[in-house]
Amino acid sequence: MAPIKLAIVGVGKIVRDQHVPAIAANPDFELVATASRHGTVEGVPAYKSIDEMLAARPEVRAVSLCMPPQFRYEAALAALNAGKHVFLEKPPGATISEVEDLKRIAASKGLSLFASWHSRYAPAVEQAKTYIAASPLKSMTVTWKEDVRHWHPGQAWIWEPGGLGVFDPGINALSIVTHILPKPVFLTEATLEFPENRAAPIAASLTFGNADRLVVNAVFDWRQTGKQSWDIEAETEAGNMRLADGGAKLFIDGALAYEAPEEEYPNLYRRFASIVKAGTSDADISPLTHVADAFMLGRRKIVEAFED
Amino acid sequence: MAPIKLAIVGVGKIVRDQHVPAIAANPDFELVATASRHGTVEGVPAYKSIDEMLAARPEVRAVSLCMPPQFRYEAALAALNAGKHVFLEKPPGATISEVEDLKRIAASKGLSLFASWHSRYAPAVEQAKTYIAASPLKSMTVTWKEDVRHWHPGQAWIWEPGGLGVFDPGINALSIVTHILPKPVFLTEATLEFPENRAAPIAASLTFGNADRLVVNAVFDWRQTGKQSWDIEAETEAGNMRLADGGAKLFIDGALAYEAPEEEYPNLYRRFASIVKAGTSDADISPLTHVADAFMLGRRKIVEAFED
Repeated sequence: MAPIKLAIVGVGKIVRDQHVPAIAANPDFELVATASRHGTVEGVPAYKSIDEMLAARPEVRAVSLCMPPQFRYEAALAALNAGKHVFLEKPPGATISEVEDLKRIAASKGLSLFASWHSRYAPAVEQAKTYIAASPLKSMTVTWKEDVRHWHPGQAWIWEPGGLGVFDPGINALSIVTHILPKPVFLTEATLEFPENRAAPIAASLTFGNADRLVVNAVFDWRQTGKQSWDIEAETEAGNMRLADGGAKLFIDGALAYEAPEEEYPNLYRRFASIVKAGTSDADISPLTHVADAFMLGRRKIVEAFED
Repeated sequence: MAPIKLAIVGVGKIVRDQHVPAIAANPDFELVATASRHGTVEGVPAYKSIDEMLAARPEVRAVSLCMPPQFRYEAALAALNAGKHVFLEKPPGATISEVEDLKRIAASKGLSLFASWHSRYAPAVEQAKTYIAASPLKSMTVTWKEDVRHWHPGQAWIWEPGGLGVFDPGINALSIVTHILPKPVFLTEATLEFPENRAAPIAASLTFGNADRLVVNAVFDWRQTGKQSWDIEAETEAGNMRLADGGAKLFIDGALAYEAPEEEYPNLYRRFASIVKAGTSDADISPLTHVADAFMLGRRKIVEAFED
């Protein structure tokens, strides 16, 4: 089959670092255009807006939408209305309802919608899921602590309403947790720490439960300097596991049990090609639902101002 | 058919004012027990907890759960595990995910789950829906302003995380809006006003949109003294309507077009009886989803302290 002609909308760091190399390495796709106010990709025709790109390049069959989530719905709507398949960077939107709307529209037009969660494709995630499935789960603890100044320097939008603050990385953890747990959980308690000068939280502690009395505790913190932590630990009746480094490594009872080269974005584009070929969608909203629940149920605590 | 033996859990003002008379007037139900820490209903056997009640009264076939939403999941789980059909007062829970969990559990056990939205059963709501469906909709404006001191005197839980603040009445408006609109909308912008001494908002302004460029504006305010407002206005190409007094009256182009006696809770119990008989559920979460979206996307504004 001829490659799927693809355009990227919203060209920033994640596009250059991850999307472009993953697309280049995948024979199912051919990157034929970008649309972005400022960013471009060397050697690829660049347009200033998605509307301009869609008008100029009717051969485009699919778009990857990588702008901040507050602007994703409009671009997705334009793409779906033009008959294109849509890949949504995470989080898939600024609200649950708008993503549900996109799901309805894509389904009504027979187009594929992919709500991508790159951390689910980290090397050891499937091994962790298999380990947990084999024995009754007793508890789970998530520690996601990183230095926002290092990972998001000067990115103002993450501090705006809809930018989600520390839930921008935290939702990666939630995307793994919702994938590997044998049974859904729901939030029972949360505290969100808002810097006094910011509209989004810099830290959060969350407790989830379910009908089986499983307890999942999660701590997200953007003020971590030095060693960074992206760990999910689980205690099962057969033993303990730690999914470390954002899903890169699996430790069982303290010993390294699995690691493999990181291929999150290559895997995302393989998945996108497969749903486009199959004529299906893959748009699980559950990580975003947990975030919305945390904003609704969480207790707000005002903390020290944050300056970039 | 013999009446469905029913128990009420969480006996407060809404139970005495609305549930008990509606049940008494409905031959499909027989109120056989209550469970509540403090409240009782005259002439009805009272238990202190749902577990005690379920153990003592195995003939109960259905329960109405009327405690604050933060405590609803545990009671619903106990009831479903005991094989009872469940009527949830609004809002159906403290999080979206927990209500989705109850939906799965009820479905797996073949039990009826009813997420009740009493305002949808106000007299003129169906007429408003019919009016809007007849002609293209141009805009909608929701004004829900009431005096919290009058309607919720001393109710501390509504100011706690999960109590929803002004969204406790506002969700009634959203339950009507989501029912009468021909097509779903999603939140595009919101401002939530939090009293400096409270964990829940006292006012909110919301803007919704959809793929057809419909704009719905909503203002909720709990600081309204004097005249109270529970109005939904819609401008259509054929004319304008105002659904007034919380759904009690419909005005078309300024003239009263429909009113009827208020029967929200009698209608809720008719609906509950019909889904129990049919073996189905009715658990639309969309009003709660909009509230969660508002907490996630909304800009927070700190306002004057509120004292009861």
